[in-house]
Amino acid sequence: MVQNPARRTALADAAIDVLAREGARGLTFRAVDVEAGVPNGTASNYFANRDDLLHQTARHIHHRLTPDPLILAELLRAPRDRALVTALMHDLIRRISADRAGYLAMLELRLEATRRPELRTQLTGTIREDLENNIAYHLAEGLPGDRDTVVVLYLAMTGLILEHLTLPEVLGVDGLAALVDTVVGRTVPAT
Amino acid sequence: MVQNPARRTALADAAIDVLAREGARGLTFRAVDVEAGVPNGTASNYFANRDDLLHQTARHIHHRLTPDPLILAELLRAPRDRALVTALMHDLIRRISADRAGYLAMLELRLEATRRPELRTQLTGTIREDLENNIAYHLAEGLPGDRDTVVVLYLAMTGLILEHLTLPEVLGVDGLAALVDTVVGRTVPAT
Repeated sequence: MVQNPARRTALADAAIDVLAREGARGLTFRAVDVEAGVPNGTASNYFANRDDLLHQTARHIHHRLTPDPLILAELLRAPRDRALVTALMHDLIRRISADRAGYLAMLELRLEATRRPELRTQLTGTIREDLENNIAYHLAEGLPGDRDTVVVLYLAMTGLILEHLTLPEVLGVDGLAALVDTVVGRTVPAT
Repeated sequence: MVQNPARRTALADAAIDVLAREGARGLTFRAVDVEAGVPNGTASNYFANRDDLLHQTARHIHHRLTPDPLILAELLRAPRDRALVTALMHDLIRRISADRAGYLAMLELRLEATRRPELRTQLTGTIREDLENNIAYHLAEGLPGDRDTVVVLYLAMTGLILEHLTLPEVLGVDGLAALVDTVVGRTVPAT
């Protein structure tokens, strides 16, 4: 395996773009090489096989969609009330809108996981850990609500993001921010 | 175009199975013929082109996932309280669990819709109409809550179904019924 970190990142970015545009079946070493603009055969030097390519791409999407610690620290200077939860959800929507390909690629990987048990195990571990971390964080920071608050908010935001990214006109693109406010207002106590 | 309704339905059922198993890129006339066990060339006599195949398949999924009017009438003999909303959501989960391929195929079509404006227009129309019908129904039947109640419940159930069908261990398969109760309990007023 070749170890050029910058090139590995460029290949994983290319794999995300291929997944988002072509779907999981379109993700081949050849397509990644073409998308990254590197010589044919390069991707096969960085990924042991197609499973490895899927797994590394999943890890890279997760990294790309992680909140910026500086923005998070700035948001967390506010009081621990519902308005702060709303601000965190607006930041989530901002990140996803800024990396539409990343989130669409994750949806493709979810569907591919129904066909590949190892990928399913990997994604399950990552997403369950994220959810448990969010719950622990919410409670430790003294944000309003309990464990179920975070679970129901997570589910509603997952539904909202799926709808917004695939069929945005169902909810109305202009009303997205107001809809985030409504979701938080209906699932999180005021204080 | 040939007009044998039973065969058209069999081909649309086969298209759903191909979509769920192979993804949108795997959906070809040839794959539909093989899946339906009909002579090569049959599907091309029933669908004008690939767009037509996608559109008819979307309509057929929608039909397959529609509630059974008899079960719905039975459920609606109960008082118009939160317990009835919970029962309706359990019926939704039951239908989706019974037609896993249908719902997975709809997720594949959602992703394909990001690449095909006409499919996006069709799916947007269908899903928006369903949501508006659900809201009108909820209010007309005197079920607890308002328009936003139905929207937030719809989003949370959409998130729950996506998670349950693609990565069921994230939420825990055993806890699914309890989770539906929690979602309704947190988004719908008691009466």
